[in-house]
Amino acid sequence: MKHFFIAIIIFIAFSSFNSAKTAKINEQPINKTDSIVVKHLFNSALTNGEGYEWLRDLTSNIGGRLSGSPEAQQAVEWGEKLMTELEFDKVWLQPVMVPHWVRGEKEEAYFTVDKIKYDVAICALGGSIATPKNGVSGEVVEVNSLAEAEALGEKLRGKIVFFNRPFDDTLIETFKAYGGCVDQRGGGAKVTGKFGVLGVIVRSMTNSIDNFPHTGAMGYGDIPENEKVPAAAISTIAANLLSEKLKENPTLKFYFKQSCETLPDAPSFNVIGELTGSEFPNEYITVGGHLDSWDLGDGAHDDGAGIVQSIEVLRLFKLNGIKPKHTLRAVLFMNEENGLRGGRKYAEEAKKNNENHLAALESDSGGFTPRGFSIDDANGKNSELIKSWKSLLAPYGLHDIDRGHAGSDIGPLKYEAITLVGYRPDSQRYFDYHHAANDTFDKVNKRELELGAASMASMVYLLDNYLE
Amino acid sequence: MKHFFIAIIIFIAFSSFNSAKTAKINEQPINKTDSIVVKHLFNSALTNGEGYEWLRDLTSNIGGRLSGSPEAQQAVEWGEKLMTELEFDKVWLQPVMVPHWVRGEKEEAYFTVDKIKYDVAICALGGSIATPKNGVSGEVVEVNSLAEAEALGEKLRGKIVFFNRPFDDTLIETFKAYGGCVDQRGGGAKVTGKFGVLGVIVRSMTNSIDNFPHTGAMGYGDIPENEKVPAAAISTIAANLLSEKLKENPTLKFYFKQSCETLPDAPSFNVIGELTGSEFPNEYITVGGHLDSWDLGDGAHDDGAGIVQSIEVLRLFKLNGIKPKHTLRAVLFMNEENGLRGGRKYAEEAKKNNENHLAALESDSGGFTPRGFSIDDANGKNSELIKSWKSLLAPYGLHDIDRGHAGSDIGPLKYEAITLVGYRPDSQRYFDYHHAANDTFDKVNKRELELGAASMASMVYLLDNYLE
Repeated sequence: MKHFFIAIIIFIAFSSFNSAKTAKINEQPINKTDSIVVKHLFNSALTNGEGYEWLRDLTSNIGGRLSGSPEAQQAVEWGEKLMTELEFDKVWLQPVMVPHWVRGEKEEAYFTVDKIKYDVAICALGGSIATPKNGVSGEVVEVNSLAEAEALGEKLRGKIVFFNRPFDDTLIETFKAYGGCVDQRGGGAKVTGKFGVLGVIVRSMTNSIDNFPHTGAMGYGDIPENEKVPAAAISTIAANLLSEKLKENPTLKFYFKQSCETLPDAPSFNVIGELTGSEFPNEYITVGGHLDSWDLGDGAHDDGAGIVQSIEVLRLFKLNGIKPKHTLRAVLFMNEENGLRGGRKYAEEAKKNNENHLAALESDSGGFTPRGFSIDDANGKNSELIKSWKSLLAPYGLHDIDRGHAGSDIGPLKYEAITLVGYRPDSQRYFDYHHAANDTFDKVNKRELELGAASMASMVYLLDNYLE
Repeated sequence: MKHFFIAIIIFIAFSSFNSAKTAKINEQPINKTDSIVVKHLFNSALTNGEGYEWLRDLTSNIGGRLSGSPEAQQAVEWGEKLMTELEFDKVWLQPVMVPHWVRGEKEEAYFTVDKIKYDVAICALGGSIATPKNGVSGEVVEVNSLAEAEALGEKLRGKIVFFNRPFDDTLIETFKAYGGCVDQRGGGAKVTGKFGVLGVIVRSMTNSIDNFPHTGAMGYGDIPENEKVPAAAISTIAANLLSEKLKENPTLKFYFKQSCETLPDAPSFNVIGELTGSEFPNEYITVGGHLDSWDLGDGAHDDGAGIVQSIEVLRLFKLNGIKPKHTLRAVLFMNEENGLRGGRKYAEEAKKNNENHLAALESDSGGFTPRGFSIDDANGKNSELIKSWKSLLAPYGLHDIDRGHAGSDIGPLKYEAITLVGYRPDSQRYFDYHHAANDTFDKVNKRELELGAASMASMVYLLDNYLE
């Protein structure tokens, strides 16, 4: 409590300065109280944060938690127990049926040149079918795009198609580089299956040149069963080596084997915790991330970080006696990675129950140092309002506040005039770990995670107070 | 080359947008060419950067390189060889005598409560004397400040003084937290020696609660020889445990032993590489970091990062055919950590030779993702000019451009009206590794390091073109 008063004293000076600056830039003075509350939320997160230890627990004691797995079920129970212990006003599970894909045995791959065998770091892509039991072996055709593969057409028959377009490293925002490549992973098999290829291998979706294969979702769309071929990701080191060796030996043979399969849909849950609104209990602000993760790592940055930050937002409100006007919900969405069933179910239920959703905030870009927020609103009016908070948030590193994609899980809520916001941490390291075995707790910095939670709590506080 | 033209085409569009935006905010249109050059420097660093592999080499093959050590000499030769191979116009060594402190045998420490022995992670502070051969043992007085220790005065006689004021975690910029605590490390022994204490132990200078002791410089000032006492840092985990146990057992005894010593000053060098200016060859812009590091880790973030970034700045100019108007110098300063002799020598020689130094830029805050620059100029005129480049630099995460401390090594150049600039990366992770055994190559992210080099190259380019 002492600290609270000290904080107030210090930040009256601070916020006066801030208000003056704001008035000059935006011609819109920021209420002095807001600066104090925001600063207090940051102080609180940085000195009394609990999210880091929750994340240690989730990632170390449960680990990877792919939809339908026993670990995903453990994570559901973990989230329900945690929010119950935190004495949120209401905690419940929202049932949802999810896809249930299993990796099976560890994959194998290699190629041979001049009798030298090169082992390849490989993993099946989520949703892929298995290879025949003894694997597949064939010549490789390297392509850089779906269009190039389409154009080759029948020339691909009996071959393994190797999608090798790398990330564009000149893009400062790494999500843009990902966006520019991920069609190869998602659609490579769908596009080439009709040409009778043996299988598809895709360069891992990362800027990093290392030996981790990065998994992720792929899909067959509505192609016939007999056109479906196995698809896998190989590490960037393996991709570079294979590409190099193919130049010298265009007829080299590549072998891979995987035994993954899709089982019947499984029952699972979104986990929801609530703080009831003091003025508008039937109007909702959702803050969330996704509870499922890929199986190779422990889902620390993707998206354990977003999960613990979302719960932390509600805890910070409670801890500091901030009564939200609208009902706040922390939602731990199930199945973002390979189906988005949780996000769809949440929106479906909201619509069915005529819930009035004011805003939703998602954290699904890792637990890195804060950079800003992206806003997806219907008419651009609320994004202008949120941008006017820039000078209040800039002292915390939150400079990049612009319109843009907010989040996958909250996306389905767009059926109504809701304001969607995405928390945007620094993106430089994200794809080093994304969907790979090295997405583990030790890659998360405590302060960066806590600054993210405080950034989100501040955004929720401002949305709760100013959004109409 | 193809990429260069593509970059130009893309960035004519981009820079037009940028210019328009700038004109509105600063009433000072930025030359379209500058946007293109800056973007090109970033593209070049991110796709053709060499600094990351240089850093791997320096940290893995030489490692820690404290002034006067054989490793420091190896680092001098490494820097000279590298800049010679890069065919800079001129590469030379500037002799400087440096302090030569050696750690000796691994330190030992523990305390005992109820017959249970608690081992303590400890390291001697740089510049400290040794304990007697068998160590020292005594009761502990915990204090939170130099003033508190001074006030206790004679009550400290025969005791070990334990400085335990922690970092203020509410400070977003971690260097401020460091600045608020480091007087305990630097001055603890100096202040308490006169009271006949047995020794001084200091809580490690870090936000992180872990078991790494963090070394760093301490000094005795001009106190008499017989008042000098040994000083060491203990890990934050050990500090928290000791503090807790002292509450229950105020008379517990603490033991530590260290065998460090200060040898006679040793010969060493600053390593300097030059690109000759096309218009003002006798006017200098310096870009540098420090080549020495503490001995416990490999000096990766502190300051191997600054070293390779500084060399990379000149390489990026050469690689892209950008002819600097003024002479650019990459300076690998020796002895920042425990003496600043390299920085002082460089300024002394500059003065003696009547060199005209226009500006100097230092990177000594780690190889993390870019945040901005701090500017230390004589009259505030150039800092206004530099701040006017904000909208040009903001797309690269460089938002925080303000007056402030620029860098230790370049500080002594302030005898003339020079503009000093400090590169400011994100500070959240810096003190996890600072002066500790975990400051190793694996903690550096390639893109973050490269973005820093490109940020610095852009700043040097703008200084070279616009500073008067």
